[in-house]
Amino acid sequence: MSTYQLYGFAQSGHSYKVALMLELLGLDWQVVKVDFFKGETRSDEYRNNVNEMGEVPVLVENGEKMTQSGVILDYLADKYGQFGGETAAEKRDIWRWVLYDNHKISSQIGPLRFMVGIKKMDENDVTKYLRGRITDALGVMNKHLDGQDYFVANRPTIADFTLCSYLFFADEFGYDWADYPHVDRWLNNIKALKGWQHPYDLLPKLEA
Amino acid sequence: MSTYQLYGFAQSGHSYKVALMLELLGLDWQVVKVDFFKGETRSDEYRNNVNEMGEVPVLVENGEKMTQSGVILDYLADKYGQFGGETAAEKRDIWRWVLYDNHKISSQIGPLRFMVGIKKMDENDVTKYLRGRITDALGVMNKHLDGQDYFVANRPTIADFTLCSYLFFADEFGYDWADYPHVDRWLNNIKALKGWQHPYDLLPKLEA
Repeated sequence: MSTYQLYGFAQSGHSYKVALMLELLGLDWQVVKVDFFKGETRSDEYRNNVNEMGEVPVLVENGEKMTQSGVILDYLADKYGQFGGETAAEKRDIWRWVLYDNHKISSQIGPLRFMVGIKKMDENDVTKYLRGRITDALGVMNKHLDGQDYFVANRPTIADFTLCSYLFFADEFGYDWADYPHVDRWLNNIKALKGWQHPYDLLPKLEA
Repeated sequence: MSTYQLYGFAQSGHSYKVALMLELLGLDWQVVKVDFFKGETRSDEYRNNVNEMGEVPVLVENGEKMTQSGVILDYLADKYGQFGGETAAEKRDIWRWVLYDNHKISSQIGPLRFMVGIKKMDENDVTKYLRGRITDALGVMNKHLDGQDYFVANRPTIADFTLCSYLFFADEFGYDWADYPHVDRWLNNIKALKGWQHPYDLLPKLEA
């Protein structure tokens, strides 16, 4: 058995955050495929035995389960001494962006991408609402990256890995990085990291 | 000048999270009122000089600004040795709920409450979308609290303070805690803490 088992699937940007980190750290891990589209995360079985929050990813190490991608990334950064903050101020700066991602980026792009990219819905009031919030938040990201290669301390950290995840599916939810040149440059910096792979190459893709 | 200055306003559940913590710790603090409804957080002045993320709260200590309520709560818990985790596992458990709150609770209830409670909009497809997500997330919270007085380690922590904030405005966005009896009991536990005050008593209420 591998050192780490990761519950997830390829369409989940949240699973990708952790898969990317495991890969960039060169760790030994394997996937436990979760069939989100068949309702697996909503089942009592999953909520009672895997994750009460009904979410992926879940990382298992020596039989112990850890949930929430931000917690998992922070744990791995600390344990392996890579991609984390070197000072208390840097650690706070990283958490600041992990929270921004959970509040303003991933939690808004995830549902938009599900609606228009997976369920192929037409644009509607909900997708317009989500796009409004996402456009504002991407503007904040683009401005922050002006003159910087990465979000914190100008080197790759878990702040970048949490923020980038859903952006690699941009064609599926209709954004063009030409409108956000600093975001575009930063995504290319992440793609150039040794070990980087696209979510669809790292995790099993489910039939939607 | 007080030890801490807090940029915020009473309708902001995110500001309340920090105001409540400062009050429960018995610290010396004062408010810097931010007129969200007049667009202050969207101005260049605010984004360039106060918070590039265009958000409240911002906590100032000795002239240094700190943003994101989860980061501020964690900083204060560490500094004053209260309401934090005592072990690495407890700290991870707290962050897990802080992230859940940012992703699934506050980021969904905030906009719903703005639409129906402040702007007095009729129910529409966006409010229905938000209610669907909120109802699921409150179900997770209610189940977790079955047999527990607080979210982590059965004592009050910053996990509770982040999760409770918007719930004190429930009448404004149309939820009834009779449907979530464990959430109801837990909110009463928080109200019983020495120093607890309602957001409208702790922070200046803006004209919407």
